Amino acid sequence: MAVYTDITEDDLKWFLTEYDVGTLLSYKGIAEGVENSNFLLHTSREPLILTLYEKRVEKGDLPFFLGLMQHLASRGLSCPLPLPRKDGALLGNLSGRPAALISFLEGMWLRKPEARHCREVGKALAAMHVAGEGFAIKRPNALSLEGWQGLWEKSEARADEVEPGLQDEIRAELDFLGSHWPKDLPDGVIHADLFPDNVFFLGDELSGLIDFYFACNDLLAYDVSICLNAWCFEKDGAYNITRGMALLEGYQSVRPLDAAEIAALPTLSRGSALRFFLTRLYDWLTTPAGALVTKKDPIEYLRKLRFHRQIASSAEYGLNA
Amino acid sequence: MAVYTDITEDDLKWFLTEYDVGTLLSYKGIAEGVENSNFLLHTSREPLILTLYEKRVEKGDLPFFLGLMQHLASRGLSCPLPLPRKDGALLGNLSGRPAALISFLEGMWLRKPEARHCREVGKALAAMHVAGEGFAIKRPNALSLEGWQGLWEKSEARADEVEPGLQDEIRAELDFLGSHWPKDLPDGVIHADLFPDNVFFLGDELSGLIDFYFACNDLLAYDVSICLNAWCFEKDGAYNITRGMALLEGYQSVRPLDAAEIAALPTLSRGSALRFFLTRLYDWLTTPAGALVTKKDPIEYLRKLRFHRQIASSAEYGLNA
Repeated sequence: MAVYTDITEDDLKWFLTEYDVGTLLSYKGIAEGVENSNFLLHTSREPLILTLYEKRVEKGDLPFFLGLMQHLASRGLSCPLPLPRKDGALLGNLSGRPAALISFLEGMWLRKPEARHCREVGKALAAMHVAGEGFAIKRPNALSLEGWQGLWEKSEARADEVEPGLQDEIRAELDFLGSHWPKDLPDGVIHADLFPDNVFFLGDELSGLIDFYFACNDLLAYDVSICLNAWCFEKDGAYNITRGMALLEGYQSVRPLDAAEIAALPTLSRGSALRFFLTRLYDWLTTPAGALVTKKDPIEYLRKLRFHRQIASSAEYGLNA
Repeated sequence: MAVYTDITEDDLKWFLTEYDVGTLLSYKGIAEGVENSNFLLHTSREPLILTLYEKRVEKGDLPFFLGLMQHLASRGLSCPLPLPRKDGALLGNLSGRPAALISFLEGMWLRKPEARHCREVGKALAAMHVAGEGFAIKRPNALSLEGWQGLWEKSEARADEVEPGLQDEIRAELDFLGSHWPKDLPDGVIHADLFPDNVFFLGDELSGLIDFYFACNDLLAYDVSICLNAWCFEKDGAYNITRGMALLEGYQSVRPLDAAEIAALPTLSRGSALRFFLTRLYDWLTTPAGALVTKKDPIEYLRKLRFHRQIASSAEYGLNA
C-alpha cells in the first residue's frame, strides 16, 4: 500500500484540463502498489486511476510501461489503458511527479486462488506474450543474472543472520545459474511480476492484468516460472501440482512451450525463486524495525528455490508432454 | 491514511449477502481516516464505503455514531448514510471487526479553503447542530476538561522537551479552564472534529460532512471554536479574520449565537486549541521515530492557544454584534 504524494484539488483540476474526461467528482488515495502513488478518481463519466510515479521508478522507463499497456490493450488484452492528453502525450506532470491517467479496471484479486483460476492466469500470461509481439520499445530485465549478483553483494555479508549457511548456499546457486542459464529460448515482453494481486477476477472470470512496472524483455518461459512460484505453492511451502498443471495447461492452450523451454523450466524456476528471495532479503535486512511496511519473509522463496533444485524433470510441475 | 485490516473477496462477498446492494465489482483500501480501515466498493449499483472499526474505536459507541449519521441524513443533512442490512441492523462483522456499509459521498476536501468556503462550513455546522436535535442516544465528550487532564498527566513529565517552560504554561492553562469553563450554554450533538478533510466540496458548493467518530454531546459553541481553530488560521499561525468572519456569519445565518455563547468564545477556543495540542503532544512523544505516520506538530496548536489567550472580546474573531 502506498500514497506517498498528496495532491491538492486545484493542482488535480489543472492537470485534468489537459484531458477530455468530464468533471471531477472525487479522488481517493488508494492502498495499491508499492512503488507509486495511486488515486481512484470518480468523474462525471467513468472511474479512472491516477498514478504519480515516485522516485523508485526510472523516468526513462515510463514510455516503455505506458506504451506497452497501450500496445497490449490495442491487441485485445484486458489491461489498464493510459489515456492520451489532448496533445497526444501519455504522461503529464502533477505535484512535481510524472503522472498518468489510466482506465479503471473492475475486478478483485484473489487471496486464495484455486486451480481453475490458475488455468485462467496461464491463458492470460500466454495471451500477453503473444500480444506483446511487435512492441517497438525494448527494456532489458534489470533483475536477471547480473542484477541478482548486484543485489546479493549488498546482502551477502549479513545473509547468515537470516539462516546459518545461507552465504555458501546462495553463492553456489548464483554460480550454478551463471553457468546453466538457458540461452536461445523464445523471448519477448514479459510481465515479470504476475502475482495474484496483479490479476483481477469478476467471479471466476479473469477481468484483467495490472501493474506492468516490472515488465521487460526476457525469456517468455521465465515469466511462466515466475507464475509457478507466485500461484502454485501452498502457504506451508508445498508445491500444488493441481494448480501447476492447470496453469501450464492454460498457458499451452494459447502458446505451447517448445522442448527447450520445457527442459529449462526447473532452472528458470530456480532463477525466479532466487530473484524474489534476493529482493525480499535485501528489504528484510534494510527496512528499519518499527517501519509500518510489511516485510515479506525471504525464507518463503528460499524454500521454493530448494524445491526447484530437487526437480529432476519438468513433468514434476504437472506438465503433460 | 490507514488500512489496517485486509479483507478477502470471499469474506466480503459473504458479508454483502446480508445487504441488498447489487453485485460487487471491485474494492480498494483507501487512505482515509486514521482510526479505521476504509474500502471504496464499486457495485453494479452505486459506490459504497466499507468501514472496519479498529481497536481504537469503542464498540459501545458505534450505535451512537451510526445512528447519528442516520438521524442527521433523515433530517436533510448531507452526510454518509449507513445502509441497513436485510435484518435491519446497521452493523455487521467482517474479518473479526465490527463493520458497516455507508453511502459514498462525492466531493473533495479543500487543501486551501478560502473565506467563501468557511461561510459554507459555518452554515453546515449550524445545520448539523439543528438537525442533531431529538437524537435519542447520548455520548459524553471524552475529550473535554477531564479528558485533557488525563492526557496531560501522560505527557507532562516530558513536555519541556517540546519547548522549555511548557509544563508550567499548560498546568496554568488547565487551572484557568477548570475554573472558567462555561456552564449553562446551549448544548447538543457536536461534530468535534470538523477539520477541512472532513468537509467535501464540489466546486464552491459544500457537498457533505463526513467522519462523525468524535461526535458527542457538548456545548454547541465549543464546536464553533473547534472550527475557528481548524479553518481560520494561516499556515504561519496568524488568525485570518476574513475567514473567521465568514465562518461565524455563515453559522449565525442558520443558528444565531446567544450573548453568553459569544462571551464564552475566547475561553472555548482556548479549550479546543488545548484539546488538539494535547492529543498531538501525546502522539508526538509516543510515536516511535521511523514510523511511517505523519506526526502533526503540537506547536501549531500551542500558538493558537496563545493567540486566544490574548483575545479581549469575541469581536476580535470577526463577530458582528
